[in-house]
Amino acid sequence: MRVVRVVKYHQNLELSDAPEPEITSPLDVIVKIGAAGVCRTDIHILEGQWAEKSGVKLPYTIGHENAGWVHAKGDSVTGLEIGDKVILHPLVTCGLCRACRFGDDVHCENSLFPGINTDGGYAEFIKTGARSLIKLDEKLEPTDVAALADAGLTAYHVCAKAARVLRPGNFVVSIGAGGLGHIGIQVLKAISAATLIVVDRNKNALDLAKKLGADHVVLAGEGDEFVKEVLNLTGEQGAEAVVDFVAEGGSTATGVKMLRRAGNYYVVGYGENLNIPTIDIISTEINFIGNLVGSYNDLAELMVLAAQGKVTLHTSIYKLEDFQKAIDDLSAGKVRGRAILVP
Amino acid sequence: MRVVRVVKYHQNLELSDAPEPEITSPLDVIVKIGAAGVCRTDIHILEGQWAEKSGVKLPYTIGHENAGWVHAKGDSVTGLEIGDKVILHPLVTCGLCRACRFGDDVHCENSLFPGINTDGGYAEFIKTGARSLIKLDEKLEPTDVAALADAGLTAYHVCAKAARVLRPGNFVVSIGAGGLGHIGIQVLKAISAATLIVVDRNKNALDLAKKLGADHVVLAGEGDEFVKEVLNLTGEQGAEAVVDFVAEGGSTATGVKMLRRAGNYYVVGYGENLNIPTIDIISTEINFIGNLVGSYNDLAELMVLAAQGKVTLHTSIYKLEDFQKAIDDLSAGKVRGRAILVP
Amino acid sequence: MRVVRVVKYHQNLELSDAPEPEITSPLDVIVKIGAAGVCRTDIHILEGQWAEKSGVKLPYTIGHENAGWVHAKGDSVTGLEIGDKVILHPLVTCGLCRACRFGDDVHCENSLFPGINTDGGYAEFIKTGARSLIKLDEKLEPTDVAALADAGLTAYHVCAKAARVLRPGNFVVSIGAGGLGHIGIQVLKAISAATLIVVDRNKNALDLAKKLGADHVVLAGEGDEFVKEVLNLTGEQGAEAVVDFVAEGGSTATGVKMLRRAGNYYVVGYGENLNIPTIDIISTEINFIGNLVGSYNDLAELMVLAAQGKVTLHTSIYKLEDFQKAIDDLSAGKVRGRAILVP
Amino acid sequence: MRVVRVVKYHQNLELSDAPEPEITSPLDVIVKIGAAGVCRTDIHILEGQWAEKSGVKLPYTIGHENAGWVHAKGDSVTGLEIGDKVILHPLVTCGLCRACRFGDDVHCENSLFPGINTDGGYAEFIKTGARSLIKLDEKLEPTDVAALADAGLTAYHVCAKAARVLRPGNFVVSIGAGGLGHIGIQVLKAISAATLIVVDRNKNALDLAKKLGADHVVLAGEGDEFVKEVLNLTGEQGAEAVVDFVAEGGSTATGVKMLRRAGNYYVVGYGENLNIPTIDIISTEINFIGNLVGSYNDLAELMVLAAQGKVTLHTSIYKLEDFQKAIDDLSAGKVRGRAILVP
Repeated sequence: MRVVRVVKYHQNLELSDAPEPEITSPLDVIVKIGAAGVCRTDIHILEGQWAEKSGVKLPYTIGHENAGWVHAKGDSVTGLEIGDKVILHPLVTCGLCRACRFGDDVHCENSLFPGINTDGGYAEFIKTGARSLIKLDEKLEPTDVAALADAGLTAYHVCAKAARVLRPGNFVVSIGAGGLGHIGIQVLKAISAATLIVVDRNKNALDLAKKLGADHVVLAGEGDEFVKEVLNLTGEQGAEAVVDFVAEGGSTATGVKMLRRAGNYYVVGYGENLNIPTIDIISTEINFIGNLVGSYNDLAELMVLAAQGKVTLHTSIYKLEDFQKAIDDLSAGKVRGRAILVP
Repeated sequence: MRVVRVVKYHQNLELSDAPEPEITSPLDVIVKIGAAGVCRTDIHILEGQWAEKSGVKLPYTIGHENAGWVHAKGDSVTGLEIGDKVILHPLVTCGLCRACRFGDDVHCENSLFPGINTDGGYAEFIKTGARSLIKLDEKLEPTDVAALADAGLTAYHVCAKAARVLRPGNFVVSIGAGGLGHIGIQVLKAISAATLIVVDRNKNALDLAKKLGADHVVLAGEGDEFVKEVLNLTGEQGAEAVVDFVAEGGSTATGVKMLRRAGNYYVVGYGENLNIPTIDIISTEINFIGNLVGSYNDLAELMVLAAQGKVTLHTSIYKLEDFQKAIDDLSAGKVRGRAILVP
Repeated sequence: MRVVRVVKYHQNLELSDAPEPEITSPLDVIVKIGAAGVCRTDIHILEGQWAEKSGVKLPYTIGHENAGWVHAKGDSVTGLEIGDKVILHPLVTCGLCRACRFGDDVHCENSLFPGINTDGGYAEFIKTGARSLIKLDEKLEPTDVAALADAGLTAYHVCAKAARVLRPGNFVVSIGAGGLGHIGIQVLKAISAATLIVVDRNKNALDLAKKLGADHVVLAGEGDEFVKEVLNLTGEQGAEAVVDFVAEGGSTATGVKMLRRAGNYYVVGYGENLNIPTIDIISTEINFIGNLVGSYNDLAELMVLAAQGKVTLHTSIYKLEDFQKAIDDLSAGKVRGRAILVP
Repeated sequence: MRVVRVVKYHQNLELSDAPEPEITSPLDVIVKIGAAGVCRTDIHILEGQWAEKSGVKLPYTIGHENAGWVHAKGDSVTGLEIGDKVILHPLVTCGLCRACRFGDDVHCENSLFPGINTDGGYAEFIKTGARSLIKLDEKLEPTDVAALADAGLTAYHVCAKAARVLRPGNFVVSIGAGGLGHIGIQVLKAISAATLIVVDRNKNALDLAKKLGADHVVLAGEGDEFVKEVLNLTGEQGAEAVVDFVAEGGSTATGVKMLRRAGNYYVVGYGENLNIPTIDIISTEINFIGNLVGSYNDLAELMVLAAQGKVTLHTSIYKLEDFQKAIDDLSAGKVRGRAILVP
């Protein structure tokens, strides 16, 4: 089958031929790829940023946002039939460790991460585990949802976590209205009545935010003017929650100024250091909450919102063999919504 | 009455005479001081560290850990009689703001903090509000509990917060077994079955920790050896919770290495900056939880533990007029347990 | 001033003249009534159902759903000015007991309940406490919201409680789409993404439910057909939550059949006994959750939803002196929405 | 191998020979039985009480509280070696349904219950699944813990649930200090600081309760005197939690009178109907919480408490072939602690 692989870091991906994956364990499932999301992390991988963390051996196939159809399955797989339309949770988890058993499968002690540390979905077929598959509602197609498998799932996870403690009259600030942020906005509007303020440096992103239901939008710039604007919207008290989808370029330093006493600062993006005097943390009793991708159950819930039409995604579709153009467009900021590869 | 006041920053406290406080509002209560705790914060106040934050006008009477007897009360005060033995919650709160109504009275939007921003308890009498008083069990005396009013309350607050998500088999690390830490140890043993590892640079403190019920003690030193020792005790996974009573001298940088994936790092002490790469926060999905002093209800619960004999405090008693010796002993590290002034 | 009073049980209310209430304590507030809701409980009071429970001495003024303007206030009342437009939380609470301090002011150990056990709002003025008043958004008028003070608040309280554990894809059944139910529907749609099934015996109520956002409506009848219909909508698993606004006429026996394993049955209405074999409770591990009126903070949140236009109320306005017609219309089921008395 | 089977309802169990179980699926595990608890449910099974609910086909081997050593395992079983000392969670669960993924494996949509609806542990070997096994600490032996697998697990589950909302100064009433109750007492003392009142009709049980750490014991009798005694211990307010291990013989009707406003009534035992006026449920806003056996993670936590010596069990050991004597002794109330069969 055709696959697109990392052959060497700091070098372009390469299209080549590889044997199809095979069932080797009774809980394995082979999925025929219907769509694979192209994510900024894929670019970071090529830059070698994940080389040490993932320990993956080159060459390997990237792509960690996948959806398609069940193609083959191991003997112990139940509840799935060949041909079923599915989205793949990004991790292959054990189901036996304490984390898996508590629903925190993201912290599985024995997980694989296809596309990151084993072969992923820029290919015709991918091997995953029975625990990682969610059947799609008939209204949804692989190309509609593939990019929700990781980026969308992360946004859902953090917004659902925030929403569980947000109440009507509370304020939540979303820093960033891009790939993750624009999904987060839809999620927050669907599951909470908190007042949503969206901050971004990009006016177009704010226009989209407004369309998606943001109650207020604030254009970020140099200096602290936009922080004052946010504070003013909250009656000078700050927001009960700040969801930081950026966390670079000084975002945390300004973001934390938007937070109310006893508020929660959700770190989702990454890049810079969080660098805060402990006296500021304790005297206002604020919390910094880390956020990784969501659990299987989170993804199931997100698929419900997608099927209900409450979360939608703009996608730009590329053929698998046009992977380089997709990557180039993403690098150049020319992709509208999310880029999707279709084999 | 006799009072001990801050007259000027960077200068010793002074004993002088001042008029007794008077009831000016129907919810005021005047308490005859039975004991006032001497706290490291009092030294920081003299050093001017709180000058700007508190905005207090000099001279004023310090002392924010107070217990005694009800001496006079306003017309609308119910449930308290003259002569009642009481401990004072450190804040005077409004009871009307949203925070007060949710039990987060520490975040009251209209509070006073006697001893910090208005006259405190290094005196014969103190004025507080009806909302701030807890009647003491007959087994407890003001000298037994005064130092629980702030230091102890802070320790209780953070440990109770941690305990709510700790389960048998989980590990909790207490960084510091000093003034707050040794109360925290007792609280954790009283309300949870988590395995407690206490880390301190001081061997004597660890001996006390062991006596108070710590499951393991680890002597902190230079380098990372003690971190490895802690990790080893947790099966190399790290602890589900780290309670950092120190947060200076590099404590947060080593402390965070002791934390398990998805763990909670409770910041209680202050001094240094928390400075953590956001990628470490999100890739392990850890949280940093700020902690201030506890609420009124927290203090009521701590008084229950004290009356049950589950939390006890070593105290060294000084006469009010010997305030300077108490301060000097505290500065010199010569106080066994907590220093208490008795008028 | 004019007041409408219970003079004797099993006898009509009477309009008479009474002295205006006066400030007798520094936290008292006198409110000029702008609107008083007429509630089925008022009829139950006349029938003597509350005589023993309330212990109220006749004659007294009824009316427990009140909104208006601040007319006079005690010396210690802060944050309120004469003329402020307000809604009244139905209870006058102490703010000092453990329940009040935790935000559960409904369980205040020293509360009064104007209209139930002391003079209420079928009058020109009412006396309440500073703790019970919420300023209205400028977009809202007393006549818009008075009936939210008790009926609406109860609906908000239970639905917010349910929503805190409901997730996308979960089902919630509302039994009853009447006075409370039709507010509950709006609340659930505003703060959760759970799929809402509304059950009622009245087709008009179901039409309204549909208009207000119910995902499915089911006409209740004799027998178990409608239970099967509900189960069918949930994939034969039952709903994660059932909110029973009726709890009489066999509602609990059929309602519990709609519940999923480990589900929550929220009891809001009252009348019949809950009578369930304990083996059914333990073998499916279901919970029965009692619900009273909401807290002050709940009412503040409901006022936010009202100001945002997410919760609206149909009202039929009567002059105070037409109280008998309002009561008669309510008894006869002729009131569209909620009846409101305006002095 | 030798097995003890239900051959017919209303007839004694029979010892017979049966083929050893075999691995038929890659996640199967065969355990050599070290100890099997004899439970009152076994008697209820013989009485036919479970015939319809379980739908089991006779003859079959009973015994649902099992511990022993791994004897054989399927190809996909990881983390377990032949010879490992293990306790068996009573259910064999799928790990794939939403409940399993949330840690609520007790509500697994595809579970088996060996000893109830398939062959259990009154035998030399038992077949279970890889998901059901917990390795024992070296300090623990199968005979020590077998009876914790179901009875103990149920007690742990409910007490841990209650403890999560109990605070120092709160009261918890345990109705019953028998098989489950005496474990519950130990659990509550280990993980909470709430004040524990134990109620039982049996003076010996109360003596044991006292020894195990109950703060107060109350002898139940006819009439309401003992209810008054409990209320008196709680300052006439009632307990924040009542854990009813009995739920027959009028226990729920008296138990609910011991409950404080807004309190939680945990139903664990079964037999009678819960029959409560809905007006009492809503006017005090109390909850009735159903409780089944605990999850796998609950059992892991209980094994921690057992290894720490915080929960111990009195056991009376019988040879497998003496099963009838064990059953007879249990029926006659002559077993001290729990009866255990050892093959």
